[in-house]
Amino acid sequence: MSSKQVIQVINPNTSLAMTETIGAAARAVAAGNTEILAVCPTQGVPSIEGHFDEAIAAIGVLEQIKIGREQGVCGHVIACFGDPGLLAAREMAQGPVVGIAEAAMHMATLVATRFSIVTTLPRTLIIARHLLQQYGFEHHCAALHAIDLPVLALEDGSGLAQEKVRQRCIQSIREDGCGAIVLGCGGMADLAQSLTRELGVPVIDGVTAAVKMVESLVALGLNTSKHGDLDYPIRKNLSGQFERLN
Amino acid sequence: MSSKQVIQVINPNTSLAMTETIGAAARAVAAGNTEILAVCPTQGVPSIEGHFDEAIAAIGVLEQIKIGREQGVCGHVIACFGDPGLLAAREMAQGPVVGIAEAAMHMATLVATRFSIVTTLPRTLIIARHLLQQYGFEHHCAALHAIDLPVLALEDGSGLAQEKVRQRCIQSIREDGCGAIVLGCGGMADLAQSLTRELGVPVIDGVTAAVKMVESLVALGLNTSKHGDLDYPIRKNLSGQFERLN
Amino acid sequence: MSSKQVIQVINPNTSLAMTETIGAAARAVAAGNTEILAVCPTQGVPSIEGHFDEAIAAIGVLEQIKIGREQGVCGHVIACFGDPGLLAAREMAQGPVVGIAEAAMHMATLVATRFSIVTTLPRTLIIARHLLQQYGFEHHCAALHAIDLPVLALEDGSGLAQEKVRQRCIQSIREDGCGAIVLGCGGMADLAQSLTRELGVPVIDGVTAAVKMVESLVALGLNTSKHGDLDYPIRKNLSGQFERLN
Amino acid sequence: MSSKQVIQVINPNTSLAMTETIGAAARAVAAGNTEILAVCPTQGVPSIEGHFDEAIAAIGVLEQIKIGREQGVCGHVIACFGDPGLLAAREMAQGPVVGIAEAAMHMATLVATRFSIVTTLPRTLIIARHLLQQYGFEHHCAALHAIDLPVLALEDGSGLAQEKVRQRCIQSIREDGCGAIVLGCGGMADLAQSLTRELGVPVIDGVTAAVKMVESLVALGLNTSKHGDLDYPIRKNLSGQFERLN
Amino acid sequence: MSSKQVIQVINPNTSLAMTETIGAAARAVAAGNTEILAVCPTQGVPSIEGHFDEAIAAIGVLEQIKIGREQGVCGHVIACFGDPGLLAAREMAQGPVVGIAEAAMHMATLVATRFSIVTTLPRTLIIARHLLQQYGFEHHCAALHAIDLPVLALEDGSGLAQEKVRQRCIQSIREDGCGAIVLGCGGMADLAQSLTRELGVPVIDGVTAAVKMVESLVALGLNTSKHGDLDYPIRKNLSGQFERLN
Amino acid sequence: MSSKQVIQVINPNTSLAMTETIGAAARAVAAGNTEILAVCPTQGVPSIEGHFDEAIAAIGVLEQIKIGREQGVCGHVIACFGDPGLLAAREMAQGPVVGIAEAAMHMATLVATRFSIVTTLPRTLIIARHLLQQYGFEHHCAALHAIDLPVLALEDGSGLAQEKVRQRCIQSIREDGCGAIVLGCGGMADLAQSLTRELGVPVIDGVTAAVKMVESLVALGLNTSKHGDLDYPIRKNLSGQFERLN
Repeated sequence: MSSKQVIQVINPNTSLAMTETIGAAARAVAAGNTEILAVCPTQGVPSIEGHFDEAIAAIGVLEQIKIGREQGVCGHVIACFGDPGLLAAREMAQGPVVGIAEAAMHMATLVATRFSIVTTLPRTLIIARHLLQQYGFEHHCAALHAIDLPVLALEDGSGLAQEKVRQRCIQSIREDGCGAIVLGCGGMADLAQSLTRELGVPVIDGVTAAVKMVESLVALGLNTSKHGDLDYPIRKNLSGQFERLN
Repeated sequence: MSSKQVIQVINPNTSLAMTETIGAAARAVAAGNTEILAVCPTQGVPSIEGHFDEAIAAIGVLEQIKIGREQGVCGHVIACFGDPGLLAAREMAQGPVVGIAEAAMHMATLVATRFSIVTTLPRTLIIARHLLQQYGFEHHCAALHAIDLPVLALEDGSGLAQEKVRQRCIQSIREDGCGAIVLGCGGMADLAQSLTRELGVPVIDGVTAAVKMVESLVALGLNTSKHGDLDYPIRKNLSGQFERLN
Repeated sequence: MSSKQVIQVINPNTSLAMTETIGAAARAVAAGNTEILAVCPTQGVPSIEGHFDEAIAAIGVLEQIKIGREQGVCGHVIACFGDPGLLAAREMAQGPVVGIAEAAMHMATLVATRFSIVTTLPRTLIIARHLLQQYGFEHHCAALHAIDLPVLALEDGSGLAQEKVRQRCIQSIREDGCGAIVLGCGGMADLAQSLTRELGVPVIDGVTAAVKMVESLVALGLNTSKHGDLDYPIRKNLSGQFERLN
Repeated sequence: MSSKQVIQVINPNTSLAMTETIGAAARAVAAGNTEILAVCPTQGVPSIEGHFDEAIAAIGVLEQIKIGREQGVCGHVIACFGDPGLLAAREMAQGPVVGIAEAAMHMATLVATRFSIVTTLPRTLIIARHLLQQYGFEHHCAALHAIDLPVLALEDGSGLAQEKVRQRCIQSIREDGCGAIVLGCGGMADLAQSLTRELGVPVIDGVTAAVKMVESLVALGLNTSKHGDLDYPIRKNLSGQFERLN
Repeated sequence: MSSKQVIQVINPNTSLAMTETIGAAARAVAAGNTEILAVCPTQGVPSIEGHFDEAIAAIGVLEQIKIGREQGVCGHVIACFGDPGLLAAREMAQGPVVGIAEAAMHMATLVATRFSIVTTLPRTLIIARHLLQQYGFEHHCAALHAIDLPVLALEDGSGLAQEKVRQRCIQSIREDGCGAIVLGCGGMADLAQSLTRELGVPVIDGVTAAVKMVESLVALGLNTSKHGDLDYPIRKNLSGQFERLN
Repeated sequence: MSSKQVIQVINPNTSLAMTETIGAAARAVAAGNTEILAVCPTQGVPSIEGHFDEAIAAIGVLEQIKIGREQGVCGHVIACFGDPGLLAAREMAQGPVVGIAEAAMHMATLVATRFSIVTTLPRTLIIARHLLQQYGFEHHCAALHAIDLPVLALEDGSGLAQEKVRQRCIQSIREDGCGAIVLGCGGMADLAQSLTRELGVPVIDGVTAAVKMVESLVALGLNTSKHGDLDYPIRKNLSGQFERLN
């Protein structure tokens, strides 16, 4: 139980500032024997705000999963609310892989009958909708909201995006008939705890939730199933830029 | 992170042997700073194999939740696969409450695309079906199976029930197109780890899963939402045998 | 067809006033050969406004079902809109058991393509939502509304709650795109007929609906199935306060 | 309660023998003050075994509804398991209209957690599937079976079809995990009671179920909602053969 | 590919003006080798605004399908947004049959993640709702709207209905979070192209969509499956007015 | 209508043989004025048999979409049964983008009430399952089957895979209660027509279906909606290997 273990927290975009925010949030909740390795791809998109961005980010996630596996990490977190590349990453990984959207949504259903989601740009709402459907939580979601600011506004130091998130949470609690809020962006990881305290309802960040989920799975000895459709990718000649994924 | 904390693991039936099995399983995965308080009601049913049994067990769960809260435990586990009294318990509790069916199902979706359930008596399958629907995991369940032995057969020392569970797991993995197995009874808690090793696929027990879930929620500062429908029960004159729930 | 028969109408809370309201409503629609036995538990909660209350009420329901069965009643109604203890009661009963929520919802789908629900406290809405899902009527429900008054306000003699129900029905008909209203509380049983007349749309009370459902099932010779998961509870040593359920 | 009332039971096909079977079954369960008016269209199809047959039958149903309304009947039953023309009939009717498929399915969910359907030709199964989806009972149906004999085989006097139904019921109870059987054809109306007795599980016929449903709705004062989409058809010049529907 | 082929476009109502509108729209998109045969029943309803109207229209559709098949058309379009008689028509037809509601909905899901529907009278919304459920597109529909004018207002020459459609489309795009609009009436067929251009989002008409769908199916050699439940109707003695459907 | 137009058919894997098979199938059904541009990525995976392969293939798809858009093609087909990168491709494209899984599934629902899917490796079944859920066709799918041979076995010239597909189709038609078969791999494109003829039921290939779908959308003037979540990707600094996607 107390032997050292490393959890790789992958920010799928290339923003170092956000990687730091995410890493710090992860460390704040990690168990004493867990070391957090916060990484991001060297190549990719600076922020993820649509399916195109996600497709690119998925490659970065896979590269990091491969590196993490070679480094012997015990599990992986995909720290973008769309969980880009999740099932592909599970194929590649030996240990557990948890996305922050799924982690936050799962946790939310344990402390409230229904939750609302507060995210960044309206165009990303469809990604959250599809995840709710895929994970089975449509009936547990009271409403989805976007503050209509881009992801990187969370890193501009002005605090404007943070204040908009806060306002939207307050309004959701009043109007949606929800018992908890899920924050819909990895860049909001540092807001969850203070909002939970201020608003008196669970405000859930996926980064921290996913770290605890991975720790839990590791403690239970539960790795990604290699029986069936999450088995390691069939060995093939990957060509060009993808060779290094071999 | 490292201050002492107590998690109350409630076996909703009155079987002391099963309470011990459950408590031992819980302790085996608990974090270093977690103390497991394994309890069961003093009054109730010796095993839970239907809705009637569950209705009775729910009262025992509520009594224990009340005691646990007064003892200052940080969270609660309901250690029967039907999660009896779960939402009522959440109303009564301050900390998080996690049922072992939901914990096992949640965990299963993180390591496999589809799981099968192996439980005891056929008549309990409907309870699992309803939970799959309520939790949102119908699409993640490949099949449900019953070994057709009562719950307490798991405590008779013969190992017969255990062997039937094992056989049913093996068959499920071969035939169901599932990547993981969820064990459908708190009394199977001690089988998960050895079956996982032997069969090479995640075999998931809800007791241990729920303990890690509660630890995770506590570490994240996430208590049961008291905003809305899981708020504390409205104070009323409970009469007769229920007075002590006041 | 014309031999005497007794239907037991169980008010799951301990309010005698409400038991009387319910009994009177039941009698007003019962067939000539049906005698209504309106009962309530001697121990329990004075009103039911959440899952905790429901868990307690379920025990009272089971006690009454047992008494009713011993008295030779032909069927049972559970007269609280959450249908507390319904499946457990079906295990225990020989004759049919019908909850008032299910009865009202079923009836509503026969006279309108979509219905709205008007109930008491907002915190009970989640119970109605879950029942809609369990019974299969999510697509038939246009909207759910709460008048934000407790159940017992319906018994305070002021008529305030009744007026709020009426207003909410009128607004629902105008705005929801529904063709019928389901009243979401046993204590509203006496309002259905006058509202139906005044508003010119079916306003459906579950108590009366359930009585007719039970009469129908009895006339058809349809008892609760004892094949499979609604079979009588497996005989066990029930301990303490639950002994009398044996 | 005891004033005379007439329920119109419409056999949507033109088989007089089947109309008689259906009428007799209806009369056997009708209340003392209910007169059963068993009718069938003068023009149409001799049996209904597909969507084409249903489309034709729907016109016959509407003609009979119009006649019934003019005769002052209190409600209508559509006695074909596909419930042909149900919503159109509700637009046309003042009183309640109940289809035998919906009646049987509703009743089945009240006495068992899951039911199986036994019907005639395989090609009619899709109609039952669609009704399950439309009525919300997909989760309550364990399996659908066809005896692979045409509807009119039930009227050929040989008893072969009846025996095949019986065999299929027995097998369903053994294998499907269901607690009740729904008979999927109006022509099976006379089998329900004896099969219920022989097999010891509820075997449900829709004709008798629908009669009791209509009686119940009438007793409750619940007519088809004329607010919204079931309002009377907008008056139009119906031309040619349809003029008489004006 | 380039041999002549005839597609029969059936306006299920008897309005010749609307048949012309529909035929013209169909011709505007038909391939060079496709001849459009725009027909309507000689007997029936002048417009379709409810289930009753649909039941009558279905007969007209079947008569036309029969005629079309005898004329050797390669496929059929049912040009009313409720797709009346669709499955019955498929039984009767050899070639493909496509309804305009399904065609428009299918197309919409190919160019947008979610679409809104704009139709005529509120009472027809339920028909669209049921089709969304039957076709599987509930999750792809953002909202349904009615302009509250009857179908034939589209043919009164005033342009009022057309302007209301346009206004409702503009509002939907602004408020619904949809990426495309589906026009919910065959009589709006001539509006799609100009609205698409003006509003800059796909505004989809089902008549034109269905014509292209039928052409596609024909080019692929895909006829209506005669294996199973869409096989030709079983030969029977159709009596009276239905004889000519034999 | 008759001006020249180019449809880009993208084989997302790098197999030139399969690209040729796909291109030939596409050309065989293309309209006279349609030129088929069959392409595949220069870098990527030789075949796609899991989520990992799909994630890589998605990048190749996006690169080709970009090239195609610059070449002025009128629309795009993604010719792999998992529709990899579909929504990302729609963001990037101006014209319509259609995946072969969605095209085949849509077409299948137009000619049969239920279809079965026959694909290659069992591990790809989960991808088809998820697409059924996402596209809304779960209820239209009777069964999913895998022949348990890898994708490239279709290109080995032995005909073994083709024969296994044929056998599986025959068995499906006999046992599944389906009216049509959907072929679950782009490499089966050349089998559809002969199997349709031999088996007498629609056997549907997505490549050809998608070509006709794109032609249809183009003829209707329907491009991918740029209003909302399928708008062009927000301009960002794509780094490293992804620069060329800018």
